Amino acid sequence: MNDFNKIITKPSLIVLKNICEENIKKMTEKAIASKCIFRPHFKTHQSAKIGELFKKYDVNKITVSSISMAQHFTLYGWSNILVAFVFNHREIDVAKELNKKIKLYLIADSTQTVRFLAQNIKQEINLYVKIDTGNHRTGVDIDDFNSLDIIIDEIKKHRNINLIGFLGHCGHTYYAKNKNEIINIWNTTLIKMKILKNRYSSIFNELIVSLGDTPSCNIISNFYGVDEVRPGNFVYNDLMQIKLGTCTYNDIAVLVACPVVSINKNKKQIVIYGGAIHFSKEHILNENGEIIYGIVSKINNGIIEPTKDCYLTSLTQEHGIVSCNSLFINSINIGDIIYVIPVHSCLTNNQLLNSIFYY
Amino acid sequence: MNDFNKIITKPSLIVLKNICEENIKKMTEKAIASKCIFRPHFKTHQSAKIGELFKKYDVNKITVSSISMAQHFTLYGWSNILVAFVFNHREIDVAKELNKKIKLYLIADSTQTVRFLAQNIKQEINLYVKIDTGNHRTGVDIDDFNSLDIIIDEIKKHRNINLIGFLGHCGHTYYAKNKNEIINIWNTTLIKMKILKNRYSSIFNELIVSLGDTPSCNIISNFYGVDEVRPGNFVYNDLMQIKLGTCTYNDIAVLVACPVVSINKNKKQIVIYGGAIHFSKEHILNENGEIIYGIVSKINNGIIEPTKDCYLTSLTQEHGIVSCNSLFINSINIGDIIYVIPVHSCLTNNQLLNSIFYY
Repeated sequence: MNDFNKIITKPSLIVLKNICEENIKKMTEKAIASKCIFRPHFKTHQSAKIGELFKKYDVNKITVSSISMAQHFTLYGWSNILVAFVFNHREIDVAKELNKKIKLYLIADSTQTVRFLAQNIKQEINLYVKIDTGNHRTGVDIDDFNSLDIIIDEIKKHRNINLIGFLGHCGHTYYAKNKNEIINIWNTTLIKMKILKNRYSSIFNELIVSLGDTPSCNIISNFYGVDEVRPGNFVYNDLMQIKLGTCTYNDIAVLVACPVVSINKNKKQIVIYGGAIHFSKEHILNENGEIIYGIVSKINNGIIEPTKDCYLTSLTQEHGIVSCNSLFINSINIGDIIYVIPVHSCLTNNQLLNSIFYY
Repeated sequence: MNDFNKIITKPSLIVLKNICEENIKKMTEKAIASKCIFRPHFKTHQSAKIGELFKKYDVNKITVSSISMAQHFTLYGWSNILVAFVFNHREIDVAKELNKKIKLYLIADSTQTVRFLAQNIKQEINLYVKIDTGNHRTGVDIDDFNSLDIIIDEIKKHRNINLIGFLGHCGHTYYAKNKNEIINIWNTTLIKMKILKNRYSSIFNELIVSLGDTPSCNIISNFYGVDEVRPGNFVYNDLMQIKLGTCTYNDIAVLVACPVVSINKNKKQIVIYGGAIHFSKEHILNENGEIIYGIVSKINNGIIEPTKDCYLTSLTQEHGIVSCNSLFINSINIGDIIYVIPVHSCLTNNQLLNSIFYY
């Protein structure tokens, strides 16, 4: 920690590599024990270095959220990549090239996209059909067999489309009120996804069911019945997972280090260099129902320890305001570095990609 | 517009250069008519190209929000730069170098920072004292003469500190309920800032008062009495300014272009490639009290025209959901580009710095 204190000049992400590796190890073991393909989502970290940690555990299949991110990871030797984002027609040229170089997997939720891919990429295309499992963003409604039949009929027309299976993202677990609700979402989704798999298994061999949001994957004891899991956030975790009860502070692997630029002892307020362009404006409510963008913390014996009543309560473009107690404010000087657990590590990491330190 | 439609493959910022220039022209003229220094804030656009538009109107003094941004603009010939962010001690080495190369202006709100600068930079340092005019972020409280006297006493001790004047940012205008409230903030602040200027004018020659948030600068008819204005957002404007009544749609100079990847006609919902990492999660409430992150629009005769009842209502990392009417949804196909006015152009521009098209 002291070493960072000397070299940090601007808002930076501190990644606790040991915690990170522990998170990877646990999730890999759970997937192996469940005889399930582990295809972690790399959009959380977007980091070649964290990628290497996964390689230590023999992970060789990954998920990304854009064609650009797929291109990025091919540079680091990844050659089996699922772009878990309904295919963007505008990127057909890049996709075509990528599909020649690596084992690329794409997703579609419409006959238009199936047809577009089939007509524009000559080689075999590995395709999942995106299913809306209740998140209501993209995908064919999990209960809408009629629409799904139409897409499957379209797929059958094209010999270059290799249907892999059905892919869902239960993003609605992020709005669950308690762990039981998350477990219920997992169980219900799994039953319904298996129905889809069975429905088309006489036409297509070896269809798979792919699921895997972090809230579920963190707390479900095993992945029996699902063929592939794709959690991403678990590698870092964050305050959202804490709030959901799907991790503890011991499992959080990232902090944002921010220089202190101004202190107002009367208002018990510290201003840091670290704003919306560093944290993102993702927020949660603290125990008093106040909007917060982070919790001040320190690292103790390699583990993150939150500081009582010290919250990041306001963000503008480059400034953050920390509201804190007297004890803490009296321990801080202008020029010091304050460490803050972010609300949503995926977004914060994306903002700080050019300023990461590994601890 | 048709040209963009062909080349855009990913979420991109479209800058309407004519509108932009018109905004620059109007603000420059208002400053000249008010015999006031115009030192526009470049944190909104961060663009060398938009910088050139300012040069057309003989602007040669600028404001930025970080030492890094000051470094960036020195590369494009800017040599009179105010870093309107309470000085970050950790960047002293860069500041020292910059101060040798250009006319650099810094700000401080504590004796510690004044002393730190004086002791670490040998050359003359141009310094403003940051005043808290009601925004309650950084700065000495505008009514707290006692604290200000202490800082001024510290400044007097150091022969290398050149006190320029008092700098305020009325960011609280962004929370004003109507235009009158903004005008009141401006007038009250100006009176109080002049008191500060007079209080110390016997000790320091030619102190100046520097103000200038966009809500005020957009609607105040003249800047009489203020010596320097530093608005930034006005160059692009956005939905926040619309909501405040401080600009019209005719004054907005930016849109985000996003590819359509999925359409759900039953839900009247379009999913675009364009999420929190492109727009930022800044939101406002629409007329129905719903959270929105943008309004769908088109460009008509060079001017932005919002589309009725078509809002960006949800953002995750890379996805955006547009909730819209039947007329609009029936006009859109997968693969089309949708144009969205952002809520806060400064943050959105920062997210899309690597993907800008000038119209």
